[in-house]
Amino acid sequence: MNDTSSNPDTRATVTQLIIALEETALRRWCAGDPSGFLELSTDDIVYFDPFLPRRIDGLSALSAHYEPLRGSISAEKFELINPLVQLIGEAAVLTFNFESRNGNEAPARWNCTEVYRYAGDRWQIVQTHWSFTGAGVP
Amino acid sequence: MNDTSSNPDTRATVTQLIIALEETALRRWCAGDPSGFLELSTDDIVYFDPFLPRRIDGLSALSAHYEPLRGSISAEKFELINPLVQLIGEAAVLTFNFESRNGNEAPARWNCTEVYRYAGDRWQIVQTHWSFTGAGVP
Repeated sequence: MNDTSSNPDTRATVTQLIIALEETALRRWCAGDPSGFLELSTDDIVYFDPFLPRRIDGLSALSAHYEPLRGSISAEKFELINPLVQLIGEAAVLTFNFESRNGNEAPARWNCTEVYRYAGDRWQIVQTHWSFTGAGVP
Repeated sequence: MNDTSSNPDTRATVTQLIIALEETALRRWCAGDPSGFLELSTDDIVYFDPFLPRRIDGLSALSAHYEPLRGSISAEKFELINPLVQLIGEAAVLTFNFESRNGNEAPARWNCTEVYRYAGDRWQIVQTHWSFTGAGVP
């Protein structure tokens, strides 16, 4: 892909595509299937979430982190709040707030940054950062 | 700048440069001066930290968030742990774990993702995500 990030049509198309990829992976995640994200991620992915003592480096380490969760996660409803894509050539930076919930439970609230890279034929995730919204508010 | 991200010399040079920019801004931050980060950030920066109810969009909103902190933050020592730069053309994704401390206090431990964009003459931050390491561990 050439760098067409200054083309408004391209920007709009890539934005829609990236958000659709993320929503599809999240739908699988909320049904207990981490493979949606694993299939989207590159071999050199780097990854943060609040349950880790440090950054995870690489797809095999991320797979090992996710496999024990298979089948154990479920959320009936989820929402990407105000998703935004910053397009920089063959990089796309997706940020959003996220809420998921089951029944009448209080929602889980997250901040998320995903960096996608265009790999010649498709967009893949090279960096994931999940954190709790408001974790530092007493 | 042409996309020279496949050139190993360029990758090494950009990695060193990005880490040096971040360390310089962190040195000012730890001395109570948020302007290092504000001067590095683009007008369209997006930003997460654990004290916010949602993503901040734009430099003026980030400035308003940071100004009350001016002079109130201090850390005698800090360390970027295992900083890594993923270079994607004119985007550079910096991730690291971070520890800061005063005296014999327990260190503050953070995850950080910074996305830099090359702006023709210098690298600037377009996305910042700070979160607490292990916030989800009981």
